[in-house]
Amino acid sequence: MTRFIDTLTASWRRTGSLLCVGLDPDADKLPRAAIDALDGGAGAGLFAFNREVIDATAPWACAFKAQFAHYAAVGAERELQRSIAYIKQRHPDTPVILDAKRGDIGATARMYAREVFERYGADAVTVNPYLGGDALAPFLEYADKGVFVLCRTSNPGSGDFQQLAVDGTGGRTLAEHVAARAAGAWNANGNVGLVVGATWPEEVGKIRAQVGAMPLLIPGVGAQGGDLAATLENGLVDVGDAVRAGLLINISRGITGAAGDGEDFAAAAGRAAQRWCGEINRLRGCG
Amino acid sequence: MTRFIDTLTASWRRTGSLLCVGLDPDADKLPRAAIDALDGGAGAGLFAFNREVIDATAPWACAFKAQFAHYAAVGAERELQRSIAYIKQRHPDTPVILDAKRGDIGATARMYAREVFERYGADAVTVNPYLGGDALAPFLEYADKGVFVLCRTSNPGSGDFQQLAVDGTGGRTLAEHVAARAAGAWNANGNVGLVVGATWPEEVGKIRAQVGAMPLLIPGVGAQGGDLAATLENGLVDVGDAVRAGLLINISRGITGAAGDGEDFAAAAGRAAQRWCGEINRLRGCG
Repeated sequence: MTRFIDTLTASWRRTGSLLCVGLDPDADKLPRAAIDALDGGAGAGLFAFNREVIDATAPWACAFKAQFAHYAAVGAERELQRSIAYIKQRHPDTPVILDAKRGDIGATARMYAREVFERYGADAVTVNPYLGGDALAPFLEYADKGVFVLCRTSNPGSGDFQQLAVDGTGGRTLAEHVAARAAGAWNANGNVGLVVGATWPEEVGKIRAQVGAMPLLIPGVGAQGGDLAATLENGLVDVGDAVRAGLLINISRGITGAAGDGEDFAAAAGRAAQRWCGEINRLRGCG
Repeated sequence: MTRFIDTLTASWRRTGSLLCVGLDPDADKLPRAAIDALDGGAGAGLFAFNREVIDATAPWACAFKAQFAHYAAVGAERELQRSIAYIKQRHPDTPVILDAKRGDIGATARMYAREVFERYGADAVTVNPYLGGDALAPFLEYADKGVFVLCRTSNPGSGDFQQLAVDGTGGRTLAEHVAARAAGAWNANGNVGLVVGATWPEEVGKIRAQVGAMPLLIPGVGAQGGDLAATLENGLVDVGDAVRAGLLINISRGITGAAGDGEDFAAAAGRAAQRWCGEINRLRGCG
């Protein structure tokens, strides 16, 4: 049994990359060449599209992340399943996160854990902490899998609740209180990570100070305008042998939708992944 | 366009019931007769099971609620889709809630809204407020659909975050602050409801005092041991013409798993639904 954190750490070292490639194909936003690949409608073609993107970007990806909604909206569960299976087969050392943001009470959470880890075979999942620790336990019990808990999300309204100061926690915000729980009792199996948006780089620093070397999954770079340089400065951490990592910088549309008119979408995705990987590495001083 | 709240209010009146029948078939927990109906494995048979339960319980159900995880875990999206379509066809006046507890940032939330309302054709959905108001907007924009926001969930650990007092809200807990937002800006289309567990009947009362006649979806009665009498006392509200309602009391396993050895599962489900409906009505003084 290989633990998720070990697979991820090995992947950071092997690829020399902190880039997480987001597989969120949205037929309405894909370039022409990509849409042509999505033949048949209703989800058919998503696997063919992903397959090309996966192979083109794998050399620059420390991980892949599939966004569940993009498959669920069009009835493409089978395409999602095939995409994850393809990564496990062709790129077995690159972990796959299923970004499903699950959150439900115990008995139901067990069904969701079964879905993500057994049905889809993902290596890690994103979960929502609002229901409390007992609702996360069924995920955390999969000791070899990774569980990324939403902490400070990248959207403009994330402060509505996440930035409220909560009583009795020494002035912590709700997000910081979630981070404290994540670094404490929830992490008995050493398999917890957090989601913190690059749109809040100061929070990346505060949370990093709270949670040690725990992996942080970082959305919000690219289309959402997150501050990559400040996020890296505040979030990088030594993961052993003087390697500065601890972050998965997710880019989705900036890679899958990189092609211009008439361009090959997979080649464009590969170039975009190489460019993002390089930009991240330049900023972390190892490019 | 019929608004969800109007369909629901009409259903409360027509059926004289506050019972919401939960369609959460779990092959591991179903009685023998039910398992026999689940022939073929991997989700096959779930529709056949649901169809029988739906027809047997409809006279005593103000609504149906399907729990997404129970279908997703076994790859039974098609069975879920068929179950909802069956209700729309045979019992068109009984609203269907898809209990999926979605929560994601704007663009992705739009995909989830499309999934629940367009792909599955549900009349209402459950959503998680942790990401803030902008993440709920894509659901709330479906003015004719219902959106039940998680407020105080039924599980033992729900207080981990939901019961924390938040600064700057006049001593409100996080759950009460969510309720305030739900009753305010989020409810511009009059389509918001809240999820409050019967395991916290005092919270039902506090939240009812905050939100007026907003519908409350109440899990936690039955297997989870919630206090039905206190929940009704604290949560009932006049919904017009002196009808005391405003609550959807959800029972899942107590109905779908009501059959003993050798008993017909659908007949047992029908009897259990009638019993729960009667017990609720006795306690609200109209049995």
